[in-house]
Amino acid sequence: MSKKYVYLFKEGNAEMKAILGGKGANLAEMTNIGLPVPPGLTVSTEACTVFYENDKNLTDEIKEQIDAALLHLEEQTGKKFGDQDNPLLVSVRSGAKFSMPGMMDTILNLGLNDQTVLTLAEKSNNSRFAYDSYRRFIQMFGDVVLEIEKYKFEGVLDRFKEDNGYVDDTQLTVENLKDIVEEFKAIVKKERRIDFPQDPKEQLMYAINAVFMSWNNPRAITYRNLNEIPHDIGTAVNVQSMVFGNMGDDCGTGVAFTRNPSTGEKKLFGEFLINAQGEDVVAGIRTPKSIDELSEIMPEIYKQFEDITQLLEKHYRDMQDVEFTIEQGKLYMLQTRSGKRTVHAALRAATEMVDEGLITKVEAIQRIEPKQLDQLLHPNFDPETMKAATPLAQGLPASPGAATGRVYFNAEDVAKAVADGEKAILVRRETSPEDIEGMIAAEGILTSRGGMTSHAAVVARGMGKCCVAGCEMAKVDEELKLFIIGDVRIAEGDYISLDGSTGKVYKGSIKTVKPELSGNFGILMNWADEVRRMKVRTNADTPREAQTALDFGAEGIGLCRTEHMFFDEERIPVVRRMILSTSTEQRVQALDLLMPMQKGDFKGLYKIMKEKPVTVRLLDPPLHEFLPTEEKDIVALAKDFDMQVDELKAVIHSLQEINPMLGHRGCRLAVTYPEIAAMQTRAIMEAAIEVSKEENCNIIPEIMIPLIGIQAELEYVKKVVVETAEKVKEENNSSLEYSVGTMIEIPRATLIADEIAKEAEFFSFGTNDLTQMTYGFSRDDAGKFISEYREKDVLPEDPFQSIDQEGVGKLVALGVKLGRTTNPDLKIGVCGEHGGDPKSIEFFHKTGLSYVSCSPYRVPIARLAAAQAVLKEESDFQNDK
Amino acid sequence: MSKKYVYLFKEGNAEMKAILGGKGANLAEMTNIGLPVPPGLTVSTEACTVFYENDKNLTDEIKEQIDAALLHLEEQTGKKFGDQDNPLLVSVRSGAKFSMPGMMDTILNLGLNDQTVLTLAEKSNNSRFAYDSYRRFIQMFGDVVLEIEKYKFEGVLDRFKEDNGYVDDTQLTVENLKDIVEEFKAIVKKERRIDFPQDPKEQLMYAINAVFMSWNNPRAITYRNLNEIPHDIGTAVNVQSMVFGNMGDDCGTGVAFTRNPSTGEKKLFGEFLINAQGEDVVAGIRTPKSIDELSEIMPEIYKQFEDITQLLEKHYRDMQDVEFTIEQGKLYMLQTRSGKRTVHAALRAATEMVDEGLITKVEAIQRIEPKQLDQLLHPNFDPETMKAATPLAQGLPASPGAATGRVYFNAEDVAKAVADGEKAILVRRETSPEDIEGMIAAEGILTSRGGMTSHAAVVARGMGKCCVAGCEMAKVDEELKLFIIGDVRIAEGDYISLDGSTGKVYKGSIKTVKPELSGNFGILMNWADEVRRMKVRTNADTPREAQTALDFGAEGIGLCRTEHMFFDEERIPVVRRMILSTSTEQRVQALDLLMPMQKGDFKGLYKIMKEKPVTVRLLDPPLHEFLPTEEKDIVALAKDFDMQVDELKAVIHSLQEINPMLGHRGCRLAVTYPEIAAMQTRAIMEAAIEVSKEENCNIIPEIMIPLIGIQAELEYVKKVVVETAEKVKEENNSSLEYSVGTMIEIPRATLIADEIAKEAEFFSFGTNDLTQMTYGFSRDDAGKFISEYREKDVLPEDPFQSIDQEGVGKLVALGVKLGRTTNPDLKIGVCGEHGGDPKSIEFFHKTGLSYVSCSPYRVPIARLAAAQAVLKEESDFQNDK
Repeated sequence: MSKKYVYLFKEGNAEMKAILGGKGANLAEMTNIGLPVPPGLTVSTEACTVFYENDKNLTDEIKEQIDAALLHLEEQTGKKFGDQDNPLLVSVRSGAKFSMPGMMDTILNLGLNDQTVLTLAEKSNNSRFAYDSYRRFIQMFGDVVLEIEKYKFEGVLDRFKEDNGYVDDTQLTVENLKDIVEEFKAIVKKERRIDFPQDPKEQLMYAINAVFMSWNNPRAITYRNLNEIPHDIGTAVNVQSMVFGNMGDDCGTGVAFTRNPSTGEKKLFGEFLINAQGEDVVAGIRTPKSIDELSEIMPEIYKQFEDITQLLEKHYRDMQDVEFTIEQGKLYMLQTRSGKRTVHAALRAATEMVDEGLITKVEAIQRIEPKQLDQLLHPNFDPETMKAATPLAQGLPASPGAATGRVYFNAEDVAKAVADGEKAILVRRETSPEDIEGMIAAEGILTSRGGMTSHAAVVARGMGKCCVAGCEMAKVDEELKLFIIGDVRIAEGDYISLDGSTGKVYKGSIKTVKPELSGNFGILMNWADEVRRMKVRTNADTPREAQTALDFGAEGIGLCRTEHMFFDEERIPVVRRMILSTSTEQRVQALDLLMPMQKGDFKGLYKIMKEKPVTVRLLDPPLHEFLPTEEKDIVALAKDFDMQVDELKAVIHSLQEINPMLGHRGCRLAVTYPEIAAMQTRAIMEAAIEVSKEENCNIIPEIMIPLIGIQAELEYVKKVVVETAEKVKEENNSSLEYSVGTMIEIPRATLIADEIAKEAEFFSFGTNDLTQMTYGFSRDDAGKFISEYREKDVLPEDPFQSIDQEGVGKLVALGVKLGRTTNPDLKIGVCGEHGGDPKSIEFFHKTGLSYVSCSPYRVPIARLAAAQAVLKEESDFQNDK
Repeated sequence: MSKKYVYLFKEGNAEMKAILGGKGANLAEMTNIGLPVPPGLTVSTEACTVFYENDKNLTDEIKEQIDAALLHLEEQTGKKFGDQDNPLLVSVRSGAKFSMPGMMDTILNLGLNDQTVLTLAEKSNNSRFAYDSYRRFIQMFGDVVLEIEKYKFEGVLDRFKEDNGYVDDTQLTVENLKDIVEEFKAIVKKERRIDFPQDPKEQLMYAINAVFMSWNNPRAITYRNLNEIPHDIGTAVNVQSMVFGNMGDDCGTGVAFTRNPSTGEKKLFGEFLINAQGEDVVAGIRTPKSIDELSEIMPEIYKQFEDITQLLEKHYRDMQDVEFTIEQGKLYMLQTRSGKRTVHAALRAATEMVDEGLITKVEAIQRIEPKQLDQLLHPNFDPETMKAATPLAQGLPASPGAATGRVYFNAEDVAKAVADGEKAILVRRETSPEDIEGMIAAEGILTSRGGMTSHAAVVARGMGKCCVAGCEMAKVDEELKLFIIGDVRIAEGDYISLDGSTGKVYKGSIKTVKPELSGNFGILMNWADEVRRMKVRTNADTPREAQTALDFGAEGIGLCRTEHMFFDEERIPVVRRMILSTSTEQRVQALDLLMPMQKGDFKGLYKIMKEKPVTVRLLDPPLHEFLPTEEKDIVALAKDFDMQVDELKAVIHSLQEINPMLGHRGCRLAVTYPEIAAMQTRAIMEAAIEVSKEENCNIIPEIMIPLIGIQAELEYVKKVVVETAEKVKEENNSSLEYSVGTMIEIPRATLIADEIAKEAEFFSFGTNDLTQMTYGFSRDDAGKFISEYREKDVLPEDPFQSIDQEGVGKLVALGVKLGRTTNPDLKIGVCGEHGGDPKSIEFFHKTGLSYVSCSPYRVPIARLAAAQAVLKEESDFQNDK
């Protein structure tokens, strides 16, 4: 039996997203629960895979299945492709497993030709509508299938409007439209040397081809890279019989959310346009009306729509984002899906749904994308500074947060400015998928057209980026690179500030501050804390960082990098004196000067963290990092130190390394200069003893030795640490406890973790370095080829952002397993950047780590991700049973 | 029951080397087969371990066991410690599991004091002997136990000789010796503020302590490092009742080998001294007589000795190195052990013993230390140049080979000269363990005193280093740094040449050539080839290297580094033009110029290797390695290329990397510039097709892609290679086969070897890079701390010399296992430097590799080591059963 590649809507359901795509699966589900969905069929994602395997051609098998499904569709609708009496018209839309809004191409009104347009005019009794549909179809088909530049068609429209003094497309007459259709067909003929295809089935095969091709267009690839969507799952194609929102004033089209996607408020939220079709609403060409107004214009339809949306929310047990069309007074549902929402909205909706009894706490935890929490930490304007600021204009509050930067008018200029270290605001009349790179780079986005569901708004919310949309007061001239609001003229490079939560635009730069965390955040975080097993610590070197992390719920410091203290302006001369010492005595003298400073640093941290664990890593970077490299600095240093310049240069030269990453650093420094480790141990211990007394608490320092690759290294350095620590205890008549552990960041350390664990009381995986060495990638250099690797799909994901489970992860798992064989009580954490990455956190949970440590602003993300990891594991366990 | 730490000789046997040390175990064995061995006891190596655990003190338990064994010894000998009538005198010698000649300290005549010296004089009827023994004892004890500098005692002896006009120690009278004893005791008193201990048991405990302490003296540590002997196994102490070779002219002492240790000839070979004691022979102070002469002086003793040595060789089934003493006409055996021998001797003895039926072929293979074969490859003098050379002097042919270099007179000067890139000859009156570093660094060694078993000779043979010993014609003045032979004066820095096989010394420098490989070598290699499973290939980039390796038995080329061809003087301008190209077109133009050159290189290799496999690795190093770094070279290049200097500098700068080891190189270059891989593939394929035709053979090129860490990298580059190769085949209408494989040198590659093996037809482990990344050691930089690690015993072995089985080896084993799961036919080799290291080769065999590839001169070593690995595995298997 041959494989099934084509499904009627009534043959599918919501579980079949992998095969039918999200859109197709939900259309099938809605069909089957009896909602008014225009009939249609879905060509599966598996057909897309076959298409690419077959050298980008549809196989005969698939074509036959499409033909068969079309026959069904014709029977169902009583219409026929190309029929003079009752022609079938369809829309053709892409729909992958994961939502990729606006990333791929759509064709409407397919089936129109020189004959059926006449029938459509007759049956609708509306020639204008028929010819408007036909010209739209040729335009879309020309763009998407034939790849003729859009502006060629738009230029014709503009000319007609100009010549006739029209402001709006709706003013075009039937005769205008007939002429435009002819001109459009002439453009096709001129550009592609073919007549515009008249056979609807031929049109359809072309269109399906084009949708499949669009899976690999550059914006789709960029979107997938950004959202970590696999490149090999393909898209489905949905072919649906057309309903028309543009047949007159009893028609319309719109989109709505069952709850407010910005705030989470439980109230239908959306927009619609009367007498409009398809992409008109989301494209932001015309500014739509609020969905509330529909209850006034079409009260019955509104009631029906409201009932349907409530049904859908209950059915899916989640906030829905729906699309609908009203054709001559009849409501049709064209799409439903989980609604994208800001983190504010997500938190409010989740906690309220728990209150409503719609979902459980556990489900609420799973509803929040941990990375989204990042948005909470985005700055708001400083209220003091705000007082002095005068708003310039009001737009739509499309994506919350505050942003300040210089304005640029296209994606390229933004990217360039950001690369040069500037903060930029992207200003566009409206955005399109071509602007995606600029949107990623910008601090915030301002558009003069489009609504809350315009491209700019949807994408910005997805990114958690501040956006003010539809600010019609702003006259944007992208060519001249300026915009005008009243009599204020803002040119490229001028500062503006945006408040995405209020929609206000300000001139100049306004100081930003961190937001207060809302009540729903606290509630959800508490639920998460009840569930998670792993502790969450922070990487912090200063009291300020420690305090921030503590406020975000950090349960300790997993990594304090002592070298950051060495770089301090007042200390660096002493550090350099230490490095340039020619004898141990000289070095010890310099270290004696550093000791009280380091002790002060540690006391500052202990005073904040009290009894929470603080892991201090001994000096890690190669010593040459502390020496000057510029000629003038070297000359100055030589003078300071009363050295010959050449002599100093020779010392600096002797410390230089070909591959410093693999050089004399970490515990290797402590083996060569045990006195440095001894000084740092003394500072840690004295600080802990003193703060324990001062604060009347019981501090247990954790001393971490970096870069261990050989068991004997650890033995050697640990001996220095323990001898010093015991001496300090004796001197202070103290019985303070402490523990000594190690970073696991050299591949070899994972392989002999059983040996190392005999000496170490804790492990902390340094997955940054472990990734560098396991891949043989220097982060300092790999940028040059990693971006090329990503483009050529050689590297599906950046291993420095999310841990490479297939490779590096194997070593982590091995290290954990071996370590626990000889030391079952071993405490194991991770302090690389992966400690704040949700996907990595799930892996660390599964691997049995005791804690993750991440930057202060990632602490809430880690808390939630750690809880989700527990739930994921439980549900996997249930599924396996 | 308490542990046994002390054994009488009659309680042990030859199998107990780990506990009794080699010397102790063999003394026990000889005792038990009825040979004349003076009775004694052994304090075990386990006692040494306890000694170090007990803070360098003997425990009471051990002391009690020593006391008990001493009682036995006193009963056995009928003598008593300190007894006025019949005092027991003993020697105290170290003896570890592995022979460490001269590395540790020995004390003779222990038990003598102011009383027993009188008894000894009376009983021996030889006061001179008694006092000479006493002064020797005080001198050794002072040196070894009390650590008083030797020269303080020697100065007294020299003064007495000078004052009395004596030439030789034997001329000292009894009165002289009595005075000397008093002066020696005064030295002890002055230097250490103690009276010389008179209680023999106290002397003994001191001495045992000192021997245990000597285990960790710097020369012992250096020796163990050099010979890869573990540092934690400790030494035993042998306490043996004294026999005296210095009681008169019916006494003597000597050492002998059962076969000639230089040539392997089956004939007793050794030296002795009449009226001498202990270390006199090996210390090289007096030049001894050949063992042949003993048959004339003491024919009966000689006969008895000859019988014993033959018995020992049969008993041990190996050539023996024995020590003996004749006391008043009675022969005593003091030591037997396997004799160290040159590789020439080892090969001859092994093959002859097979002929004699003494050992099997398999045993013969096991008898040769593979590393020793290296000596075979040492240079001899070029016969043509030799004709013009006039010998300056004749010494003893102590260790074969030929050497040329500038003379230096102490170890430090040699080391310095060698560090400066010179070739040096170490010239000493005699060598001592303090000279060991200089001996390692020197090309050859010349001494004016000492025999074939002197320190210099024994150590040089062990190292396979050319040595001429006992060249008495040379008057060496180490202080003035010159030596005089007749009227020729050779000063520091002058060239001389040594022939270690003839003992001849030449003035000036003589050209050296590789030796002919002797018949026994060929016989043994054939036996080895019959046994081994792994193939042996070579790393070769030029026809000359390929030919050398072929002559040594290489079965293919495992690694041809194409970049070596890029560095060629005529090509580098084209290579640079390629690198500086600003477009693919420009780059392809430059590559088109390189292609015929590379093709020529490959044709050269194929013509030599014919159908033997040749693995060509695609370009590996980062491109910046091909660009100039010096200002003047950059200026010249800019001029050549008609570029601005600043522009060129900017390009060079943009290619520089912080960690080039982990940067843009290997397959990463091929992903960025597929055209380079395509050019190289074309060159390889065209060369193979042409040579196959020209030589009428069937060449199957192996194309190797370096630095793979991600499966998709391999897919990407392999596609380029295969497309090019197929195109070349088509163009040439050829059906040539070829295979595409990869280096496994990135840790990650070993972890995903199953994925990689789906695409690769062969793996070649690049264990150099794999070691660098697994340890996080850059070889370019790690020298700075690796030597410190070795000193501090943090690194027991240099992982770049012998593969780190515990860490890196685990990854190799994993890579092999995973690779074979998805590709059971996968051919797997190694082409790092470890491919020529016997211990690593054993590991690679056990791990299931198909072949090793090493430098041409290591090929014979690898052949033998691969055979031994098979035998080792079989014997381990037998033992496990």
